[in-house]
Amino acid sequence: MPLAMTTLSDSGNVRRATMSDVARLAGVSIKTVSRVVNAESGVHPATAERVLSAIDQLGFRRNLSARNLRRGTGTGTLGLVLEDLANPFYSVLTRAVEEVARMRGKQVLTGSSDEDPARERELVLEFCARRVDGLIVVPAGHQHGYIAHEINAGTPVVFVDRPPGNLDADAVLIDNSGGTALAAQHLAEHGHREIAFLGDAPEIHTAAERLRGFREGCARAGVPFESDLVLMGPHTDESVAEALRTTLRRATALVTGNNRITIHALRALAGRPDRPALVGFDDFELADLLDPPITVVTHETSALGRSAAELLFSRLDGDRTPPRRIVVPTRLLARGSGEVAR
Amino acid sequence: MPLAMTTLSDSGNVRRATMSDVARLAGVSIKTVSRVVNAESGVHPATAERVLSAIDQLGFRRNLSARNLRRGTGTGTLGLVLEDLANPFYSVLTRAVEEVARMRGKQVLTGSSDEDPARERELVLEFCARRVDGLIVVPAGHQHGYIAHEINAGTPVVFVDRPPGNLDADAVLIDNSGGTALAAQHLAEHGHREIAFLGDAPEIHTAAERLRGFREGCARAGVPFESDLVLMGPHTDESVAEALRTTLRRATALVTGNNRITIHALRALAGRPDRPALVGFDDFELADLLDPPITVVTHETSALGRSAAELLFSRLDGDRTPPRRIVVPTRLLARGSGEVAR
Repeated sequence: MPLAMTTLSDSGNVRRATMSDVARLAGVSIKTVSRVVNAESGVHPATAERVLSAIDQLGFRRNLSARNLRRGTGTGTLGLVLEDLANPFYSVLTRAVEEVARMRGKQVLTGSSDEDPARERELVLEFCARRVDGLIVVPAGHQHGYIAHEINAGTPVVFVDRPPGNLDADAVLIDNSGGTALAAQHLAEHGHREIAFLGDAPEIHTAAERLRGFREGCARAGVPFESDLVLMGPHTDESVAEALRTTLRRATALVTGNNRITIHALRALAGRPDRPALVGFDDFELADLLDPPITVVTHETSALGRSAAELLFSRLDGDRTPPRRIVVPTRLLARGSGEVAR
Repeated sequence: MPLAMTTLSDSGNVRRATMSDVARLAGVSIKTVSRVVNAESGVHPATAERVLSAIDQLGFRRNLSARNLRRGTGTGTLGLVLEDLANPFYSVLTRAVEEVARMRGKQVLTGSSDEDPARERELVLEFCARRVDGLIVVPAGHQHGYIAHEINAGTPVVFVDRPPGNLDADAVLIDNSGGTALAAQHLAEHGHREIAFLGDAPEIHTAAERLRGFREGCARAGVPFESDLVLMGPHTDESVAEALRTTLRRATALVTGNNRITIHALRALAGRPDRPALVGFDDFELADLLDPPITVVTHETSALGRSAAELLFSRLDGDRTPPRRIVVPTRLLARGSGEVAR
């Protein structure tokens, strides 16, 4: 009897069954229904059975949002603002956050900023207006003073992958400069002295750090750093192909600054007989099945998401120590493309 | 003055500034604050300025959750239950849902079921208890009677990628059987008569449909369907490698039933000199850069997510027509691995 499950209100709209509907059908008090719903003791098993049957028949569901709001226990949601959920780096990170949240009984709201600071701010404020219990943010911009209001008002915020601008707050980062320094040294060890660097937009913290690390790695290995072999993004298949055909042509080796740029470069180099040696930042699926297999600077992406979520929960649990910065290490995974001698 | 932004409650906890705090600081009525916050007319510009300054100073934010609950306008959230957000198929689908939701001013809660029907049900009920305005579900199980309660209670639900079990509801699917029929016929055209099929667990609707389509394609092309050349999952790198070494060894061609299985097969076949022809279901990044490039049955994954979200919004907008089933077409993209003659 499907109609029994809903009740028509005066305006003709379907309305959800309430606790009093359940109480009426079961012939008990609202307090008894509440005890059953919240698994409290003191209800006779036969009565509980009658209540559960009425709940089932009416399709009644607790309104967690209303309950949380009444109790002031938070909404049970976390907000996660990232750049683009369709990028495998972010989807693995999101999955890791989801796992930790799930163990703690919270759900995750996600939003993609597309590297637009205005969109980042809009998402953060929207999530705060919805009273998320905490926020994890991959920042798109550099102005995060506006988030100080939220942190001071009691919403913990952890930045991930990139630190916040003009704000001292928790952040979980990758050892970006250490990773690209490794890449430069590795290529130098294979005899390369004209090494190009293809990075993301220099305003992005990780891109700037990776360039800095590359430069340091070159210096440590005694390889000249040539600024005309550096090309910062944003990049497309076309921009990378054009650069590799022209200004970067003389490079005998490449360092690519993230998973997207590595793939642009692989497309550009496909079928070229004199392929430069290549080390990419970020591992990616099938890197080991390409010919040659791709040498990468890798890190545990899920550890990044997990650490950020765990730090957020420690704040929710009352940890009031000063803002922390956690750095996830990187390592070089030699597979073939970076071991091509000059 | 950071302390001005928060107020200590009696229990010593930080509490958020309220409209009456703002009204007090600005020296106006709560009604006036409400008018400014909700961008209503009838407030003198100088007064509005004073209110905005107080809001800024106190770090006041509207509580959208409370407002939505009071107004009964819904929570402004959609729930999306899928199998695994870290699988690129689902992350692209999620991004497409997010895009449509964003245009309609809604946020998306996501949860991964890991192909566990109990977890699917738990997520659906959790989202409903949070009063999401609507749900998009990639079902893990086959028993969806429990969702009828939610639909009858006024929460529209759209199933995506797989139809619901024992329930007539909206669903947006891929033309699974059409796709694998194309794959079988394509391989037959290149002279193959011993074609193996590696599918996902047969309880999964898409896996069963893809096997059915493969069988039909074989029949249409006059190729014998041999059940001992069929291996259904779940699969791992190891299970696929083992099968390709033993029971499926004599196959001159393979059809792999989804992006994960294609990758298991590619790992298993790497370096094998006598590689069978291969057509994979689902396109994947870098398929075109492998050697040989991989021929796939492809479909527009983002169209799947977009259509599901649009259908959900049409229900939220009051569309009361009978449940609809939308099928997204598939096509064969020949790149090389499927054009290896027997």
